[in-house]
Amino acid sequence: MHQLRKDPVSGRWVIVDLENPRLDFPAQAKIKSSKVCPFCPGNEAMTPPEILTYPKKGLTGRSEWQLRVFPNKFPALKIEEVPDKTAEGLYDRVGGFGAHEVIVENPDHQRELADLSDEEAELVVRAYRDRCRDLRKDTRIKYILLFKNYGREAGASMEHPHSQLIALPIVPSRVQGEIKGADKHSQCTERCLFCDMLKQEEKKPKLLVCSKDGFAAMEPFAARFPFETWIMPTKHASSFDSLSDAQLKPLACMLKEVLSRLKRALGDPSYNFMIHTLPLTDKESESFHWHIEIIPHLTRVAGFELGSGFYLNPTPPELAAERLRNLI
Amino acid sequence: MHQLRKDPVSGRWVIVDLENPRLDFPAQAKIKSSKVCPFCPGNEAMTPPEILTYPKKGLTGRSEWQLRVFPNKFPALKIEEVPDKTAEGLYDRVGGFGAHEVIVENPDHQRELADLSDEEAELVVRAYRDRCRDLRKDTRIKYILLFKNYGREAGASMEHPHSQLIALPIVPSRVQGEIKGADKHSQCTERCLFCDMLKQEEKKPKLLVCSKDGFAAMEPFAARFPFETWIMPTKHASSFDSLSDAQLKPLACMLKEVLSRLKRALGDPSYNFMIHTLPLTDKESESFHWHIEIIPHLTRVAGFELGSGFYLNPTPPELAAERLRNLI
Repeated sequence: MHQLRKDPVSGRWVIVDLENPRLDFPAQAKIKSSKVCPFCPGNEAMTPPEILTYPKKGLTGRSEWQLRVFPNKFPALKIEEVPDKTAEGLYDRVGGFGAHEVIVENPDHQRELADLSDEEAELVVRAYRDRCRDLRKDTRIKYILLFKNYGREAGASMEHPHSQLIALPIVPSRVQGEIKGADKHSQCTERCLFCDMLKQEEKKPKLLVCSKDGFAAMEPFAARFPFETWIMPTKHASSFDSLSDAQLKPLACMLKEVLSRLKRALGDPSYNFMIHTLPLTDKESESFHWHIEIIPHLTRVAGFELGSGFYLNPTPPELAAERLRNLI
Repeated sequence: MHQLRKDPVSGRWVIVDLENPRLDFPAQAKIKSSKVCPFCPGNEAMTPPEILTYPKKGLTGRSEWQLRVFPNKFPALKIEEVPDKTAEGLYDRVGGFGAHEVIVENPDHQRELADLSDEEAELVVRAYRDRCRDLRKDTRIKYILLFKNYGREAGASMEHPHSQLIALPIVPSRVQGEIKGADKHSQCTERCLFCDMLKQEEKKPKLLVCSKDGFAAMEPFAARFPFETWIMPTKHASSFDSLSDAQLKPLACMLKEVLSRLKRALGDPSYNFMIHTLPLTDKESESFHWHIEIIPHLTRVAGFELGSGFYLNPTPPELAAERLRNLI
């Protein structure tokens, strides 16, 4: 039997296969390249000048960096463009203003996020937050999307561990949709939908993967993709960059924990993750709750998904949650 | 320079690369399988019993079919399920009711849609229309999505030329979004947005690929993907299955024409196409215009697209249109 499920946040529908649930996916071939890596130490001149650097623990100096942030060499949007709004007959357009940055997570070409020490991973999360706080000063920026593409199937073109940030002059439709869904719930109940989702798991864990030190990971009820996993703070917060210094390490540990469970369950799959936070132009919200969406690439998006916005998910999220929960 | 463009139909934004426009994509490896094909003549017993068959021209009898329609052996939705609506705490769900059919377009394993004669291609379009008309009788069905996945990159699991149909008890969000966008335009102007898009091309063709016998092909202004192409009737019509017998061959010819131009321009790319039509429950609309969206698979969808609903398109649609227009 299949079941249609509605994601309460976005209103998006998903068809879940309860009859032949799929939990195993063949391990994917990884890209192995031997070319010179512009993200490796010693090759800093191959990238644009850095915006932010964190030195190695106990060290200073550029060649001893632990993390580097610089503008993307082939940016989707540029800070020097003007966000002028024009029309061409029926069509609306805006100049390519924005920012597109690369966050090289650590100097080692082979060490992925899940392999870093807690302190090293904390720096990655700190860089995410601090870049947001800095870009927030430019009032023309409406939204900042932080994301990571890992593995060729997930669209990664560089092998060296890195994340990306795109700052936009427009609030993306997907975020607008989530905010609208959360507002709808809040208008009826005066409560936050995400907080309610976590509360529903407290009574009887079904979709929960793990919870520790103020952060929880769960499979969304209407997961679009097998093993799609969301991480969110257990205490309500609408903006990612409101994270306190004390929250950085617990979040980094939760991210490492989930990525490492996905790796053990699925054999190092390609994945994307992206952070959904409140638009910069919005006041703190009691209904929207920031979160990270992690999407392993195990199935293909085809005509049905593209044409409908519906997704076909062969893996019931409660089974994926159980599998991930039981990994120690 | 990059430009942000808004699709007037869906309201979706796209970032188009005007600085380094990409027009060439490496040809993709095709799946070649030597296993027994259940869609080939003689293997009919390997599929569920047929719903519809068209005999070969001048012939009758099951083994001499030109086109066959049968239920998908691994259906996403089944007609015997009940679309009962239930809740689980915060979450809404509906039973897996619907239909999932396979349309084997012709008996020859190697002959793709673009290679068929006009008469053979007409039968494919006729089958699309007639299956819609038949399924429309079941009032529990709210929407029918016709689509085709060609090539592995586009999610095809079978090589033999075929299309699919999924009938849904819910109107997909993507179609709802398009209807909303078209209605918005219509409320301001009393005109159809799609008709206006075609009219804007009449004065000075920029996005138009070709137009003939009542059908036009054009690149949408905010194309999500390189060489994304839409086909629509030049005379306003909101429902695909309102197609008259006389319109079937011209539509089939336009579909063949566009697929063959894409093949020549891009070296036989994987692609999806899907038909967007009015929901079955809606009355004929003066604002919504049915159309086919064709999407070649040349780039990957990654974290930015998944997280934002924004798309990054390296190929300005006006350049893609020019390239396709100039192919004879």
